[in-house]
Formats: sequence, structure tokens, C-alpha cells
Amino acid sequence: MSRVTVAALQASFTDHLADDVARVVTLVEEAAAQGAQVVLPPELFQGHYFCRTEDESHFERAFPTAEHPAVQAMQEVAERLGVVVPTSYFERDGQHFYNSLAMVDADGSVLGTYRKSHIPDGPGYEEKFYFRPGNTGFRVWDTSLGRLGVGICWDQWFPEAARAMVLMGAEVLFYPTAIGSEPEDPGLDTRRLWQRAMLGHAISNLVPIVAANRVGTEGGQTFYGHSFVCDHFGDIRAELPATEEGVAAYQLDLAEAGKRRAAFGFFRDRRPDLYGRLVVDQ
Amino acid sequence: MSRVTVAALQASFTDHLADDVARVVTLVEEAAAQGAQVVLPPELFQGHYFCRTEDESHFERAFPTAEHPAVQAMQEVAERLGVVVPTSYFERDGQHFYNSLAMVDADGSVLGTYRKSHIPDGPGYEEKFYFRPGNTGFRVWDTSLGRLGVGICWDQWFPEAARAMVLMGAEVLFYPTAIGSEPEDPGLDTRRLWQRAMLGHAISNLVPIVAANRVGTEGGQTFYGHSFVCDHFGDIRAELPATEEGVAAYQLDLAEAGKRRAAFGFFRDRRPDLYGRLVVDQ
Repeated sequence: MSRVTVAALQASFTDHLADDVARVVTLVEEAAAQGAQVVLPPELFQGHYFCRTEDESHFERAFPTAEHPAVQAMQEVAERLGVVVPTSYFERDGQHFYNSLAMVDADGSVLGTYRKSHIPDGPGYEEKFYFRPGNTGFRVWDTSLGRLGVGICWDQWFPEAARAMVLMGAEVLFYPTAIGSEPEDPGLDTRRLWQRAMLGHAISNLVPIVAANRVGTEGGQTFYGHSFVCDHFGDIRAELPATEEGVAAYQLDLAEAGKRRAAFGFFRDRRPDLYGRLVVDQ
Repeated sequence: MSRVTVAALQASFTDHLADDVARVVTLVEEAAAQGAQVVLPPELFQGHYFCRTEDESHFERAFPTAEHPAVQAMQEVAERLGVVVPTSYFERDGQHFYNSLAMVDADGSVLGTYRKSHIPDGPGYEEKFYFRPGNTGFRVWDTSLGRLGVGICWDQWFPEAARAMVLMGAEVLFYPTAIGSEPEDPGLDTRRLWQRAMLGHAISNLVPIVAANRVGTEGGQTFYGHSFVCDHFGDIRAELPATEEGVAAYQLDLAEAGKRRAAFGFFRDRRPDLYGRLVVDQ
């Protein structure tokens, strides 16, 4: 399929699971009404971003994939509207807890899961307390709307993740996100840096990118929105502001992106024989 | 050394080797007068960008490193002014021809050479006709002003090159460049893409970047300048326009960059165990 309309959703959350999931269902419906075929909700949209602090009670938020109310709700809305919904959620697998994503296809089926590979840790983003580093490796899926790749939040800063997914054939990259102010470094505004890193991945791989972030203030931490869709050159084509909820939708031309990707020659000219430093643990 | 002033030079060239080298010597002097300690001339500044066409006569432009008039001239000016000059030149090594760089330290010595790893090829940029792909791998050098890494033009689009050099300890990345219009695709303006890719490398690695490009029109091909220095966040701190010659200089704070690089945690959180796809030849 050459043209695919993608959308990033942006919302604030109440920390009541049922209400937050219902809010996202409404936004998926809005996006679909605008023609969106792949709709990306933000990271961990089932409540507040609980990783702001380290609190053992939050492990109760995790469910096995098939039992997660948010995954089930996204399967229902995906099938009903015929849209693909990459769904971020807190996964429990026995004694292991992951920051995961279920790729929900347009028929409501779960094509598979990805577990966040890069886990951040710092004031306000205490993810290493909650999440085991992902063991799935990077994944792409042949959905009914093309081969799609997904990274989760912190993954979006790593050129290796984007490159790996495009090498695996991803035609669009999706990044559900929860990012905002730095509680202990209020002078540091990472918004332009956050976008800049992903726009760099876009042009370096000639691949469109969709990023969905939350808005609102939770316990003194303000999430800065600016969810966006950029094309294969990294030009932003749809973007939401810092505080409003809504949908950022754009129709991508995947054939044009593929033509440019071939003609620029980045993948022709890569030198994997020289990249050994990237894969040694030192 | 915590603070280092770096500069990108920007010039047009006459295609007379001695005149072009003399022009760069003058610009190095101007940069040094502004306090620059590391001064980067553009790629292959010894004449026109001859790779615009495939012409066997241009192989006469290559010299062994120690015999190259431009390398010798940069050694002289580097020693005289006490500045580091990463020097791009067309290298002949027996039957092999490379797009190379000599790292000229502030005492005029050549610390070593790097041979361009990624070789472009397309209308107006027929480099695969002239240059054997580099066999040195990525390199960094402990100059008298810090550990510096250098890529050459097309290398600047590859996240792998930037990452490898920073993993090897580079505190600043330098990219001599010759890039401009696309003779057979006049609607494609790559300037913003060219900057975007490097600003992405800067934030993804928390490393400052210096890029030097030429200006002027050579046989219908117009080079777009916009040489720049950006800091470790990818914020442009000095930049030249599209047509003027000159010096873009900025004092970097390498200690601040290093502190941010540690605290962001990108290098802490990398997953080399998951990056195998980047180094397979398929």
C-alpha cells in the first residue's frame, strides 16, 4: 500500500484505568474519523506515569498481555474501526515485569509484543526500578497496512534501534512516549532535543516517524506533548501543541519514501565490516 | 582541557591548487586570530570538487600523504599558529586512491590518517569512480586539544560512524564537506537534511559537531555553504550563510558536554547485545 494515514494521539490522564482507556478509545475514534489507518496512543496510557517515583504498589498495574484491559480495549476498537493500534502497556510475565507494546492489527488480533530495550533511570523517570530490560530484540510486523516498527520512549533516542528496525524492513517507525519536565533540573527543557533525535533518525534512514506523548501535570511533573508525524526527510507534517489533547494525522507516501531511500544510497553504502565497535560490551 | 574554540572554514575555490591552498592558509590565520584552536577546512579544498564527473585525468590530483602540497601547507600553518588542522586531501597509496584526512596537530606533526569509509555515488557526486572505500576504520586522535574524531562528508549521514567515534572517546566530531545542488534533481534541496542528520548525531551522542562546506558554483553545481558549529545538544552556535566565505568559530565547553553525556545515560543504557543486525552484511 503506497499511501497510509498515520496518527499520533495526545492526552492527559486521570490515573483511573477505565477512564483513561475510555479516553484513548474516543481519540482512536476521532483519528479514524479523520482517515487514520494506524493510530498510536502514548506510552503507558492506562494512568499517570507512575515511574516518577519508586513505589512497590505500582507493580499492581501490570497484567499479562492477554489479560490487560487496555490491550483488550484496543483490540476491540481496532477491529471495530479497522485500524492498527500499537498499544503500550505494563506487562507482567511471571516474576518479570516489562514496559511492553502489543501490535494490534486492524482485525483486532495481537501480532506480537515488543519489550522496551533501553530503560531510562533518573530523577522523575525511575524506570529501572520497574522494568526488566526487554528481551525480544527490535521487532517489525507485517500489518495489514505495511511493515511497521515500534520503539518505546527511551528507545527513541538510540540510533541503533531505528537503524535496526529499518534494516528489518520497517516502512514507518512508531514511538509511544511519556516525557516532560525534569523535576530536579528545571532549567533543562528536552523538548527540542527529543524531537531533534527522532528527526535525525528519520533522515538518516529515510523513514517516516510517528511519536505520541502525553500532556498535563502529574505530581509536579509536566508532560510537554508536541506529538508529531514527520516524513522520510524528517520534515514535521503534523504536530500538536504543549498542552492540548488531540490527534496529529498525516497521509504518508510510502512509495515516495522507498524511492528516496533507495536513491540516496545510505543502505547501499553502509560498512557493517567497520561497525564492530557498536556491538562490543566495553 | 575543558574549553576549546573550534572553527569551520568556508570558501570557494579556483581549481588552481596553489591559490586554493593559499586561500585556506589565510582563513586558518583568520580563525586563529579569532581564538580558534582547532580549524577545519572543507573537503578536498585543493581545487574544484572534481567528482562532479568521471574523468580519468583527475587521478593526477592525488599524492601520497607526505608529499601532498596541501598537507605540507597545513603542517606549516598549524605549527606556526599552534592550531590543530584536520586536513582533507586526495591520497594516492600505490595503486589505491582514497578520500583521506590527515590529522595535523598543533606542532605540525601528522598524527595519522583516516580514509573515508562511506563513498557516495550519484549524479554530480561520482565518488565511487575515484575512491576506494576506506580501510582504516573510524579513528580518533589524542591531539594537544583533546580527543577528536573526524568523518569525511558522506560519512556524516551515518549514525554508526558518529557513534563509533564517540564510543572511542571522541569529544568533538569534525566533518569536512563538499555538498550542494543536485544537478539532475534541481528540486531537491538537501541543506536542511544535511544539517538535520548531524544535529541528530550531536544529541544522540551528546557531542559537539563542526562541519565545513564550500560555496560557489563549479560547472553548474552550486555548493551551499552553511558550515556550522553545534554544541552537544545539537544547538547551532555558529553558522555561515549560503554564499559567503569566512570562519564560523565557537568556544565549546567539553566538561559540560561530558557531564551531560554521563548524566543522560545513553551510553549506560545501550544494548550492544541487541545490535547484531547492524553488523551483518545482508
